[in-house]
Amino acid sequence: MINRVKAAVAQLVGGTGSSSSPWNCPECSLAFQYSRPAFLHLSAEESERAADHSTRPILVTGQDRRRQLLPWDTGYAEVINAGKSVLNEDQAAREIVSVEKRVCKNSTAGKTAKDDVSVGKERDGLQFHYWALFDGHAGADAAVMAARLLHLHICEQLRDIVDVLRDGDVPPPISLTSNAGVVTEGGAKSAPHQGDWEPPTDSESRFLLEKEISHEYLVIGAIENAFRQMDQQIEREQSSHGYLGGCCALAVVYLLGKIYVANAGDSRAILIRSGETIPLSNEFTPESERQRLQYLGYLQPHLLGNEFTHLEFPRRIQHREIGRKMLFRDYSMTGWAYKTIEKDDLKFPLVYGEGKKARVMATIGVTRGLGDHNLKVYCSNIHIKPFLSCIPEVKVYDVAKYEHGVDDVIVLGTDGLWDVVSDREVADAVIRILSNCEPDNPNRFTMAAEDLVMRSRGILKEHGWRLSNDRLGSGDDISVFVIPLYGHT
Amino acid sequence: MINRVKAAVAQLVGGTGSSSSPWNCPECSLAFQYSRPAFLHLSAEESERAADHSTRPILVTGQDRRRQLLPWDTGYAEVINAGKSVLNEDQAAREIVSVEKRVCKNSTAGKTAKDDVSVGKERDGLQFHYWALFDGHAGADAAVMAARLLHLHICEQLRDIVDVLRDGDVPPPISLTSNAGVVTEGGAKSAPHQGDWEPPTDSESRFLLEKEISHEYLVIGAIENAFRQMDQQIEREQSSHGYLGGCCALAVVYLLGKIYVANAGDSRAILIRSGETIPLSNEFTPESERQRLQYLGYLQPHLLGNEFTHLEFPRRIQHREIGRKMLFRDYSMTGWAYKTIEKDDLKFPLVYGEGKKARVMATIGVTRGLGDHNLKVYCSNIHIKPFLSCIPEVKVYDVAKYEHGVDDVIVLGTDGLWDVVSDREVADAVIRILSNCEPDNPNRFTMAAEDLVMRSRGILKEHGWRLSNDRLGSGDDISVFVIPLYGHT
Repeated sequence: MINRVKAAVAQLVGGTGSSSSPWNCPECSLAFQYSRPAFLHLSAEESERAADHSTRPILVTGQDRRRQLLPWDTGYAEVINAGKSVLNEDQAAREIVSVEKRVCKNSTAGKTAKDDVSVGKERDGLQFHYWALFDGHAGADAAVMAARLLHLHICEQLRDIVDVLRDGDVPPPISLTSNAGVVTEGGAKSAPHQGDWEPPTDSESRFLLEKEISHEYLVIGAIENAFRQMDQQIEREQSSHGYLGGCCALAVVYLLGKIYVANAGDSRAILIRSGETIPLSNEFTPESERQRLQYLGYLQPHLLGNEFTHLEFPRRIQHREIGRKMLFRDYSMTGWAYKTIEKDDLKFPLVYGEGKKARVMATIGVTRGLGDHNLKVYCSNIHIKPFLSCIPEVKVYDVAKYEHGVDDVIVLGTDGLWDVVSDREVADAVIRILSNCEPDNPNRFTMAAEDLVMRSRGILKEHGWRLSNDRLGSGDDISVFVIPLYGHT
Repeated sequence: MINRVKAAVAQLVGGTGSSSSPWNCPECSLAFQYSRPAFLHLSAEESERAADHSTRPILVTGQDRRRQLLPWDTGYAEVINAGKSVLNEDQAAREIVSVEKRVCKNSTAGKTAKDDVSVGKERDGLQFHYWALFDGHAGADAAVMAARLLHLHICEQLRDIVDVLRDGDVPPPISLTSNAGVVTEGGAKSAPHQGDWEPPTDSESRFLLEKEISHEYLVIGAIENAFRQMDQQIEREQSSHGYLGGCCALAVVYLLGKIYVANAGDSRAILIRSGETIPLSNEFTPESERQRLQYLGYLQPHLLGNEFTHLEFPRRIQHREIGRKMLFRDYSMTGWAYKTIEKDDLKFPLVYGEGKKARVMATIGVTRGLGDHNLKVYCSNIHIKPFLSCIPEVKVYDVAKYEHGVDDVIVLGTDGLWDVVSDREVADAVIRILSNCEPDNPNRFTMAAEDLVMRSRGILKEHGWRLSNDRLGSGDDISVFVIPLYGHT
């Protein structure tokens, strides 16, 4: 299957016309059939048992001899929702990807090395480690596609800059010649200006200053563009096969000693170091992105379809209230003020609700992610996609800068985890499990992941799933990675 | 003069038509004639001496018996630039403002109490303390206007919510009746829904949730709207009297136990508490607001006038480079990637340059502030104002939450200060001066302000103004407030 996917991406990126694209071939679509993550190696019987919404068994890797541990002894655990959708709409991926330098336009795409770590650095390429969670909505299609392909899009983006990234001692060259895609310019220390570019005369210098860009920002740009490519690929799939829905995406890339955490949606990554919690991502929701959304609605009011107002009000307004003063805020405001209500203000607010109930156009509760190209406001022809962004925020953690202990980890979780357990509670639970295991026990990160899923799902009691403090447990799909940092600097 | 200004604002806010507006009366414009801040009480001779670009004498308040200390013993010092403009384009203001509840549409506007602190709280109103710095560019007009009027606009905005703010125990009501501007609804604890609004039925409840808004956010909204009103007033002035230029604005409001720091531009406020520095503002520059600017250029390309591209490149591109790959970033990107250069990419980047040299449309180095309504790209008809924002970012410091020592202060400075001295250096200098004075010396904050201006201006040597470490001193106008916090909780 991986080969088919690879070929598909290669052709896609190579610019092959859509008529001959494998995406139009029905059998290739099989590659996107629903299943639980391949690295769980589930039997048919296990898969069936895992889908039981009433017992909600927790799935893990690594505790069974038949199953391989994940790279870095990463722990993983997941559980299905309590009945809100038939399928578990979360998906997970972990890969070791070898990035081969692009030699000519018709080369094959990046190779997924899986457990073959011997290829890569030693030859002309690079290698990155990759973990990702995708939290689907309105179906699992987008999450399944992204779990199987996003790392290959990242690989594709990195292929153009293999030489630049390998030459870490010199700043990346501002320009390259585009001779059949081959990187021909080095960027030698003594020659910051390359090729036939002429240095400015004095009078021009104000306009010809040169900005120095670090390698780190090239990797960030590659990941951002990979998300965009992934989103465009989902769009093509959706229009040709009618798939629906979208997904939040949280991806971690370990490349050349740095960890890049890319987040588009409401999943979350935290670092636990020496017992402290350090956030590695922000959530993108109607509340956190309110001003961006309102600004777009203000600048392009036709996107509101005459049904919505870009202004925010603290509640719906009734017709009889026209002429009264009511609290509101515009796209540029953080504070609130009173305005006299006019007829136009009776439209539904573009951004409305609080916390987990906040929605864009009364429809969707996350504002970044992949897919959702067909998403419309209920019973209308108003598209929501223009308000959503597929671009992640990428944070960089320079692993080599810190000494990590055996209990230092990164925890990735979908909102099923974070909705009911705080960063601090997660850290305390992880530390408790890890410190109770021998440091050389390779299963201890899996046990920590399992504990987090158990802790956020809770126990089935008479009144539903309950946490140890009797609060309501998460009825959502829950997926967790626990990635150890010790020994990876 | 203050009376004339007050009357002007009253008529303005009262909606009087422009034909009878005092802004159209030539003598009223005298109110905006250039001078140094009134609270300095300069004689004509002193004013003349202060304008000497070669000696750059430092002006202060409070060290002379003729001069009154500023409220809270605030220290203030300023110095003119080293010749970059004829006038000192910085302006400063400090006021104690009594906010009277608006009773009917034709009432007079807020009263500037100056030193008469007896009015206010005791009656039906509120009182706020106010300090502000305005850093003008392309002339001093906008800075002069803002220094004389912004606090009155804040007063006007607050007048509508006096009752709401005074009733601090109950959340602000979502809606008010607009009966001749009188606030008629309380918002009693037992009745969160006011007036004739009907609570939702169960089926409606999803759409009729009510958001609770704090008093703090009402003050923030009032300040934001005051900045907008001030900007619109400058626009009217500029179109009728041909004034040019704009200014950055940094204003501090102390109201009901909280300090609100509103910043639009590149001035800066920091808190020095127990020797630690805590930033109270962010700077708004082409670099810090790049993505907002690029997003607007992308959504409304006509604003770029066919001369600029919303894409960012690390340097200008030459015609011969078409077809090569060059680093770029789009509005949604934080990282950089290579793109093949097309003809359209030869346009000048909307945002270009680094640090203090970064510019919007090769023209202006700040992206928020007041004025600039007539600002165009050199030799073109392309307006820059659409890319600038007059809305400040407002940060809140809850003074009552902390115990303040006698050396705890807020420092406000224009970029003339911060360009050459770091936050840490400012804090160290302030602490050194303050700890060397008796705590009951009312002049010690003035001495600290004077020291900061001296430190950033430097000493005139053969090779120009030099700091103690022989680095270049600031050739810009420099203005500094040092506001003590002890005893004001």
